[in-house]
Amino acid sequence: MLGSTYGTLTTDSRRARVIACGEQPGPAVHGRTGADERDVSGRPLHADVPDLDRFFRPESVAVVGASDTEGRPNTGITRQLTAWAERVGARLHPVHPTRTSVFGRPCVPSVADLPEQVDLAVLLVADPLPVIEQLADTKVKFAVAFASGFAETGDAGAVAQQRLAAAVGRSGLRLLGPNTNLNAFERFRDDLDGPAVALITQSGHQGRPVFALQELGIRLSHWAPTGNEADLETSDFISYFSQRPEVGAIACYVEGLKDGRSFLLAADRAARAGVPVVAVKVGRTETGARTAASHTGKLTGADTVVDAAMRQFGVIRVDGLDELQDTAALLARARPPQADGVVVYSISGGTGAHFSDLATAAGLPLPTLSEAKQSELHQWIPEYLNVANPVDNGGHPVGDERGPKIIDAILDDPSVGVLICPITGPFPPMSDKLAQDLVDAAERSDKLVCVVWGSPVGTEDAYRTTLLGSSRVATFRTFANCITAVRAYLGHHRFTAAYRSPFEEAPRTPSPSYRKAQALMRPGHQLSEHAAKQLLRAYGIRVPREQLVTSAAAAVRAASLVGYPVVMKASAPQLAHKSELGLLKVGLTSASQVRDAYRDLTDIARYEGIDLDGVLVCQMVERGVEMVVGVTHDDLFGPTVTVGLGGVLVEVLRDTAVRVPPFGEDQARAMLSELRGRALLDGVRGAPPADIEALVEVVLRVQRMALELGSELSELDINPLMVLPRGQGAVALDALAVCR
Amino acid sequence: MLGSTYGTLTTDSRRARVIACGEQPGPAVHGRTGADERDVSGRPLHADVPDLDRFFRPESVAVVGASDTEGRPNTGITRQLTAWAERVGARLHPVHPTRTSVFGRPCVPSVADLPEQVDLAVLLVADPLPVIEQLADTKVKFAVAFASGFAETGDAGAVAQQRLAAAVGRSGLRLLGPNTNLNAFERFRDDLDGPAVALITQSGHQGRPVFALQELGIRLSHWAPTGNEADLETSDFISYFSQRPEVGAIACYVEGLKDGRSFLLAADRAARAGVPVVAVKVGRTETGARTAASHTGKLTGADTVVDAAMRQFGVIRVDGLDELQDTAALLARARPPQADGVVVYSISGGTGAHFSDLATAAGLPLPTLSEAKQSELHQWIPEYLNVANPVDNGGHPVGDERGPKIIDAILDDPSVGVLICPITGPFPPMSDKLAQDLVDAAERSDKLVCVVWGSPVGTEDAYRTTLLGSSRVATFRTFANCITAVRAYLGHHRFTAAYRSPFEEAPRTPSPSYRKAQALMRPGHQLSEHAAKQLLRAYGIRVPREQLVTSAAAAVRAASLVGYPVVMKASAPQLAHKSELGLLKVGLTSASQVRDAYRDLTDIARYEGIDLDGVLVCQMVERGVEMVVGVTHDDLFGPTVTVGLGGVLVEVLRDTAVRVPPFGEDQARAMLSELRGRALLDGVRGAPPADIEALVEVVLRVQRMALELGSELSELDINPLMVLPRGQGAVALDALAVCR
Repeated sequence: MLGSTYGTLTTDSRRARVIACGEQPGPAVHGRTGADERDVSGRPLHADVPDLDRFFRPESVAVVGASDTEGRPNTGITRQLTAWAERVGARLHPVHPTRTSVFGRPCVPSVADLPEQVDLAVLLVADPLPVIEQLADTKVKFAVAFASGFAETGDAGAVAQQRLAAAVGRSGLRLLGPNTNLNAFERFRDDLDGPAVALITQSGHQGRPVFALQELGIRLSHWAPTGNEADLETSDFISYFSQRPEVGAIACYVEGLKDGRSFLLAADRAARAGVPVVAVKVGRTETGARTAASHTGKLTGADTVVDAAMRQFGVIRVDGLDELQDTAALLARARPPQADGVVVYSISGGTGAHFSDLATAAGLPLPTLSEAKQSELHQWIPEYLNVANPVDNGGHPVGDERGPKIIDAILDDPSVGVLICPITGPFPPMSDKLAQDLVDAAERSDKLVCVVWGSPVGTEDAYRTTLLGSSRVATFRTFANCITAVRAYLGHHRFTAAYRSPFEEAPRTPSPSYRKAQALMRPGHQLSEHAAKQLLRAYGIRVPREQLVTSAAAAVRAASLVGYPVVMKASAPQLAHKSELGLLKVGLTSASQVRDAYRDLTDIARYEGIDLDGVLVCQMVERGVEMVVGVTHDDLFGPTVTVGLGGVLVEVLRDTAVRVPPFGEDQARAMLSELRGRALLDGVRGAPPADIEALVEVVLRVQRMALELGSELSELDINPLMVLPRGQGAVALDALAVCR
Repeated sequence: MLGSTYGTLTTDSRRARVIACGEQPGPAVHGRTGADERDVSGRPLHADVPDLDRFFRPESVAVVGASDTEGRPNTGITRQLTAWAERVGARLHPVHPTRTSVFGRPCVPSVADLPEQVDLAVLLVADPLPVIEQLADTKVKFAVAFASGFAETGDAGAVAQQRLAAAVGRSGLRLLGPNTNLNAFERFRDDLDGPAVALITQSGHQGRPVFALQELGIRLSHWAPTGNEADLETSDFISYFSQRPEVGAIACYVEGLKDGRSFLLAADRAARAGVPVVAVKVGRTETGARTAASHTGKLTGADTVVDAAMRQFGVIRVDGLDELQDTAALLARARPPQADGVVVYSISGGTGAHFSDLATAAGLPLPTLSEAKQSELHQWIPEYLNVANPVDNGGHPVGDERGPKIIDAILDDPSVGVLICPITGPFPPMSDKLAQDLVDAAERSDKLVCVVWGSPVGTEDAYRTTLLGSSRVATFRTFANCITAVRAYLGHHRFTAAYRSPFEEAPRTPSPSYRKAQALMRPGHQLSEHAAKQLLRAYGIRVPREQLVTSAAAAVRAASLVGYPVVMKASAPQLAHKSELGLLKVGLTSASQVRDAYRDLTDIARYEGIDLDGVLVCQMVERGVEMVVGVTHDDLFGPTVTVGLGGVLVEVLRDTAVRVPPFGEDQARAMLSELRGRALLDGVRGAPPADIEALVEVVLRVQRMALELGSELSELDINPLMVLPRGQGAVALDALAVCR
């Protein structure tokens, strides 16, 4: 797998020129027109991509707090930084108030005394704040702060961190840390070829196994240990790495995101560049979220929202560090697939059956090979063996000249994009030859060849030398990780091929609906059902014809205007569970029924002590599929849009899908596909298919409301939205809206 | 982990004696009273456990088709069998029609000419049938047939296999194979201590990685490659291994089961003996099931039923061979837990947060350590670090005398049963010392210590020597596999502690209901709703008061007997979707409404061309929770009982649970807990809790029906069963029954 198809040179050469001329003060802001453009909610539409070239490859470095006294922690660090500076060709300047030299290099007492303007200052001091303030005058570009004791230790630390962040903001430099470490300055192997994995971690130990991939022959280009992210954050590194030509994939270990929007913008940038981002994100559970928060002092966000946001922007979320390694390595190195089909090839019918079972359950497409291809394979494979896919060669053909022919014939099939050969255990007479044949075939083909080396031992030559020695075969140790990685690989290329940035189409200016809506908002209050429905109408969402009345006679007049049969409901702010309380009457067909219903409703309300603002007389809507559509606010991502199935059962089953704005029509449709009860919309038990177009339209209109009203609208809940049969629309039968 | 708590000597010493005296002809049937006892369905209540001692450790062996001509496949096999016979101390007799000696041993022309009665005959001939017939006369105990070309190749092969099985049945010997291999005769390491893993596979290659566990220091005692299972099957080996004192856990790779009942009985035997069975079972998907069937020529059974059967009898199902290895190895070697609590201990807050997140999501209990324990830990761990669980030591304490103290203090906590230390990557200054400290602490403690060595490299000394060198630390390579194995470990001990064999209580004789039910059965027909309900009544399941009438006048008389309001339904065999067709009228409160309804129903039926046997006038039942309870037949397991939520939504979501009889009340309750919509039974939106006791009772009565009516009742579906509020019972509102 020589050469990546992703990393492009779009902005890179320009960026380098700008910096060389010294025209760019402070952090670089790249570089598309309208970089400070904002959407209607006031949030940015483009990632602010820092130019980190001089961070990773500085020409000169200051080490503040440098030491060469044996036994001091800073001495080891200074030694490692010195070695690193030599490797990257940077001039290193020790800084220490009392030393005159460190490891034979002249040492200056403070950053003010540095002999040149440095690109990077590494701060080994316990309190980085005063140094940051001094650095502002030296126009240094980057600083790294190792010190701990900030947000990760509690409230006092959080305050100290805010002070540090403020000083950084004033200084114009960009800071990595505090509470970070030497990971960025590790010794990377420089003898490995091909597209690399770039690594971002919020915990040094968690990056170590990814770093160790180099020992399996996988190239690593960068490691950004972001620590507490007082300034530079995970998103900045995603944006930067996605523009680097040598980066084939970005691997992240994330405990908490600093800002939801900047994460989306960074992921969007990576998606546009076609660079896959693979992430472990802690916070699946309350325990995990709490522990992670106490570790890095950051919010973890509602996990379902984080999960949705990642999927929207093509970030591949995995659970284990082993999956992170295997998936990132595959995605970095494999060329785009020529077809979606996966063929499983094995020397054992059992292995083929087992692997295919798990692969199919995980959604990998295993096409049946054509009759012609099967006949071709049966030239070399006994007739009684299954070669339809999985291809079972029965073992023996591996040992002779038939082995390579079979592999070539499979790879040659136009329906095949990926060949996976699971080898469960070492059986040298077969497995050694098979491994070599696969490596050779991969050299001859443009298609992806994956091998699972299932032996738990892992010291076998066929694995260590033959398979890991190949840059063209992707080798895994478990069926599960191979399946996860291949699914991500096919999914990533499908995603990026179809990707259209939702930021391009995000609304910049308020719609005419916004002014109407504003007039209805009552800050600090929950709106009455009637007012909430007017809000929906303002955004073009259909509600039943209805009138709010305060007398039985008015109710009868309203009913004849609305048209029989009617529904009548008690109306009051903060009135939930109307049907349980008997405050809802349906199917009223005459004036006398309407009069009786008015009396009943007001009687019940009086008995329950509810202060009505009236009674709603509503058009009765035909039966359809009951859905819910709503807006809630996430700590990290702001307003989010939810859609789900209505009714009591789904209240129990919580069958909902969520999206973070901005998103397009495709995502609104994808939300519906995520619902377990989706079949209800397609029509079951003879019911007609529901008007999905109308439902999608409502979801998009609700998104528009969420964006325009922003934090003014703290909650919206349309429940139920009655989705009528196809072509007949959707009607919001009840709604709840809370203003902030 | 010295010594297993499982393997007991119960029947073993007796069995050995019996065989030594030669008193036991043919396969041994052990040995509880009433071994041929049967339940009311005519199926056995006890496993028929073959005595396989002389199979695995024969005193003399015949190799039929032995060869020493270089280049012939049988020569290599003969050589391997000769080496194996020497290792186990068996006399080996080559058999070949034309050779006089093989590898210097005298060779006889046929099995009739063997110089002694052998325990085992290994058949290397293409057609084992004539040899099996000859062996019958020699009273040989066991045969192994390597030949392929039987059920795995299609219908003709299946016929040949049936002939072989019949010959085996007549001969009195027990056969392994055909289509098996040398796996049982591999060279096992004999230098490993402690309880062993016994392995059963239906595909040799699939067992290889488990066999390779020996290279990681895990003892393996047996390998049974069952092939096509013409005679001996997976279940026989499970039963046998569960009685062997050296076996700590049984690992199985299963493509298809030969017989559901014998599998349940074997699993029951293992559960009673407390020996864990861990299984990969192919067939999660249609693709996998089909491929597996074509590989071994066996049924795979409906996967949900297999899955339920395994859970009922404590078989631990895993997906990957890596999970099979890791879980079986842990369960074989770890002593029972002293407490359920799991503590995660790490040198990195990030690692602790990440591991805890995944562990909690998987349901592992991570108790918060007591204040006192936390204070104790803070003697050695800085105050600002979290030691509540996960315990984050921040790294440094590992390097000095604090390291062992922290581990001891955690293990010493009475709430702690398991300590897990994830080490994400090699960082020798810390990880080497930490690994050694964990190994040493495990030697001092009775509790389970698990380590995850997360480096993808796996050649590090701390892993290869320190961790794998310990028989007391369980070492994993991924977070996920550690979590899977520890969950299985805690679950297994919880399960066996509470296990009561359902076979003990399975009904032996028909209930009085059975005769009443038989009178209602109409072989080959679907019963009318009314008859199906009478069937339910025969088994004490409540149905509404109802009468079948054939005139409007009779309907009015019936209504006053049943009591207003009534429900009226058209009644005819094979009449489904009554409400969609308008053949159901509810809430009728007067004689005139009943008369009108009668006319409507018969008119609609006439229009639809439905031949009614009358109209049902039924008591109207109060609202409750609608459930479904039913019986279906599984190819492998026979009748199964299903319970699920009723209504259209759950028809879409398929929220059901299934069990294979026999099962007790505990499993009937467990079925309800498996339902995603379970909360509906507990009462939502102010609804009262449903009568769960009554629902459980219905499930058990339906089980009784399924057992007693057996294959006579090919399908039963109570839909809906209306479960009324607590204390009010459950009523079958509609039922469908199909007789075979």
